[in-house]
Amino acid sequence: MELTTVKIEPPKDANVILGQAHFIKTAEDLYEALVNAVPTVKFGLGFCESSGPCLVRSEGNDPELKHLAAQKALELACGHSFLIILRNVYPINVLDKIKAVPEVCNIYAATANPLQVIVAETEQGRGIMGVIDGAKTKAIETENDKNERKQFLRKIGYKL
Amino acid sequence: MELTTVKIEPPKDANVILGQAHFIKTAEDLYEALVNAVPTVKFGLGFCESSGPCLVRSEGNDPELKHLAAQKALELACGHSFLIILRNVYPINVLDKIKAVPEVCNIYAATANPLQVIVAETEQGRGIMGVIDGAKTKAIETENDKNERKQFLRKIGYKL
Amino acid sequence: MELTTVKIEPPKDANVILGQAHFIKTAEDLYEALVNAVPTVKFGLGFCESSGPCLVRSEGNDPELKHLAAQKALELACGHSFLIILRNVYPINVLDKIKAVPEVCNIYAATANPLQVIVAETEQGRGIMGVIDGAKTKAIETENDKNERKQFLRKIGYKL
Amino acid sequence: MELTTVKIEPPKDANVILGQAHFIKTAEDLYEALVNAVPTVKFGLGFCESSGPCLVRSEGNDPELKHLAAQKALELACGHSFLIILRNVYPINVLDKIKAVPEVCNIYAATANPLQVIVAETEQGRGIMGVIDGAKTKAIETENDKNERKQFLRKIGYKL
Amino acid sequence: MELTTVKIEPPKDANVILGQAHFIKTAEDLYEALVNAVPTVKFGLGFCESSGPCLVRSEGNDPELKHLAAQKALELACGHSFLIILRNVYPINVLDKIKAVPEVCNIYAATANPLQVIVAETEQGRGIMGVIDGAKTKAIETENDKNERKQFLRKIGYKL
Amino acid sequence: MELTTVKIEPPKDANVILGQAHFIKTAEDLYEALVNAVPTVKFGLGFCESSGPCLVRSEGNDPELKHLAAQKALELACGHSFLIILRNVYPINVLDKIKAVPEVCNIYAATANPLQVIVAETEQGRGIMGVIDGAKTKAIETENDKNERKQFLRKIGYKL
Repeated sequence: MELTTVKIEPPKDANVILGQAHFIKTAEDLYEALVNAVPTVKFGLGFCESSGPCLVRSEGNDPELKHLAAQKALELACGHSFLIILRNVYPINVLDKIKAVPEVCNIYAATANPLQVIVAETEQGRGIMGVIDGAKTKAIETENDKNERKQFLRKIGYKL
Repeated sequence: MELTTVKIEPPKDANVILGQAHFIKTAEDLYEALVNAVPTVKFGLGFCESSGPCLVRSEGNDPELKHLAAQKALELACGHSFLIILRNVYPINVLDKIKAVPEVCNIYAATANPLQVIVAETEQGRGIMGVIDGAKTKAIETENDKNERKQFLRKIGYKL
Repeated sequence: MELTTVKIEPPKDANVILGQAHFIKTAEDLYEALVNAVPTVKFGLGFCESSGPCLVRSEGNDPELKHLAAQKALELACGHSFLIILRNVYPINVLDKIKAVPEVCNIYAATANPLQVIVAETEQGRGIMGVIDGAKTKAIETENDKNERKQFLRKIGYKL
Repeated sequence: MELTTVKIEPPKDANVILGQAHFIKTAEDLYEALVNAVPTVKFGLGFCESSGPCLVRSEGNDPELKHLAAQKALELACGHSFLIILRNVYPINVLDKIKAVPEVCNIYAATANPLQVIVAETEQGRGIMGVIDGAKTKAIETENDKNERKQFLRKIGYKL
Repeated sequence: MELTTVKIEPPKDANVILGQAHFIKTAEDLYEALVNAVPTVKFGLGFCESSGPCLVRSEGNDPELKHLAAQKALELACGHSFLIILRNVYPINVLDKIKAVPEVCNIYAATANPLQVIVAETEQGRGIMGVIDGAKTKAIETENDKNERKQFLRKIGYKL
Repeated sequence: MELTTVKIEPPKDANVILGQAHFIKTAEDLYEALVNAVPTVKFGLGFCESSGPCLVRSEGNDPELKHLAAQKALELACGHSFLIILRNVYPINVLDKIKAVPEVCNIYAATANPLQVIVAETEQGRGIMGVIDGAKTKAIETENDKNERKQFLRKIGYKL
């Protein structure tokens, strides 16, 4: 078994969601979950089929993001994993709907950060072990940092 | 720390679900979730207790699958992991009910493919790092592949 | 890439929940999920921000547990991971509410056992690969073990 | 405003689920939720559109049940209500998936009993006020009744 | 059809939850949902069976509340309705777990207020039309009322 | 007991969601659920407190919709009911998040149609019995109607 790293750099103003599912219906079900979430969402997604023809199954409503998601899913080539790249929404807007899709097992990451996916490869295939999502944490917030965090969330309307 | 691989080959016409939970009540709660899902489900499951007697806690309604699930759970020996082997259902029929069980943390895989579980072992114990679910993805689907995929899902009645 | 191990030893009578999320609002949303769960819960939590200032964002209603959770989150320093340390509740009381928080991707473990977190580190940052939750499983339960397990759950009132 | 009663008598071996939703996509989404639930489910459903052409929107995989569900939905004629009639499953197998459909507001009843639906009618339209689901309760169970109940659920495999 | 009113006065320091479900397993499943919610919960519940012997099926872990819940459920006598009376918890602690019980259709009310349940009765049986939960609303809050509301929620620790 | 009707006419391009909850925290929790759903949502909401000062508790991020929701909630004056009026989203985008709010019991309707709310009033207070959501259903769809429905949902991108 060999461990390698696949880098995923979300495009400008985009976020990625990386997860594990099963069955080719995942591609259509993730599509429906996303269009149900936000009327103006733009996205592409790729799902790694891992039996039979072993193809990346791809859907989306934005040609650029769809092309990119399929390419990166192929680069991952991890059985039953999926990658979504989205614009006009944040992961918090859609993550509950993604988690509720009947084929979805697990979400590895939801992020706008550069992502390094740790992949194990054997003679059988490839699988995701985990992710390095953004940069290393540096310190614990001070009371001042905390106040700024709370004011920021209230300023942008997420909290009252 | 050492990384090893445990192979799980689902029996003919069976699927496996591999996850992480906590507390011995997991065994009974997974049993109830499964019998609530599909009236004709047949299954066995094993949960790896990781304190006190550290036993595989096992339930099910099919002796062969119950025996097999307990044996493979013992082979995994990863603290608080569980393995379900099921017939007469597909993971999509039951995965939402499994994810909603109050002890369940995470689902690593749901599959009919051969599964390689990457396990880390220390002097303390063992844990699942990730899975290789089936074979390596080979290519991105063509428009023709996509049409066949969509027709197939409609032919078997999953989509309209 | 280097693999290391971070040990988390839950304090007496406490449990820990280790997961993956995104966005600094996670800290407040996990706080609210926990105070909604059990009126008498005592807890602290730390969330590893992984962009900008890269700080541990921390909340809680118990100073000791809050301090400890922030310290251990900093020791983990894995982008977008979070650690909760709780008293007066068990993970089964709160896990569904944690899984439903809109930022939460995944739960790695929920346990009162000693936990070894397997962490991958690159020049970019750090990420959780998996956990070793407690001790290695030793054997499959006998019929007698099973009866004791079932009686125990009924004696403490979890099952009828 | 006038109150009237619509009787729904589930066919032999069938159950009905009566609910409130919105938007014509309900018909397809309920269909998909049901075929995802149990591989052998047979059902029909009708949804009462209440703007534009105001038609009963109907789907299913069993012609008899589909015809019957559409007829009874038309008899109800309550804006945005839906009626499902199912065989080969029990409501407990599917109710969580129905409640999670993004258009569904509320479930009035899930039952194999004769159902009387109390309907309010104005010059604008019709709406469901509530249901009389089966017969009037007669007494509180005795200890003996309770033991029989618990034994029955364990005999049929729902509880351990 | 006749409309009548059943009064439910929650005992001191108690709340009630009134809902609609189906199948006698509801009694055990609601019990398990509640004991999973809060370690110190005290409660009683009654479920109105509406076929066969038509008995109030009752569970709980507090004799007084169990007796009272069964008595009031019998007074309601509405097919497939259930009534829970709880202490040491608030409805917000348990309502998500109750809504997720596989037999549960709907929750009519969760309250510590005096409750008037509007019941329709026919020659077939009885059913809940709706509830009057507490007193009539008198006015819209002023800015001062709003500030007091928000301060109160922050003082008792529910909001940050 | 007297039955009356309250008319709610959603403003142009707006939808309403009418439900039942408990506890004044509902106002803030519904606010957060909605801003988490869609980045561009505009809304107002009113919740009918039914003990103590019995005020309409109101939140929102659009002054016109907030004023209107509070006025109509006061007109309803039904204990523990809430009314949301929203723009820039459809109910399918937000309904799962609303149903998951820990105080929410039930959703009576989600609609852009004129709504008639059937209200029971006693000397104690007022409560919602049900709704008449839009117009009376006229007929069962033909095969042609069905094809048009399915094409419409695919044309606007909701189905593939």
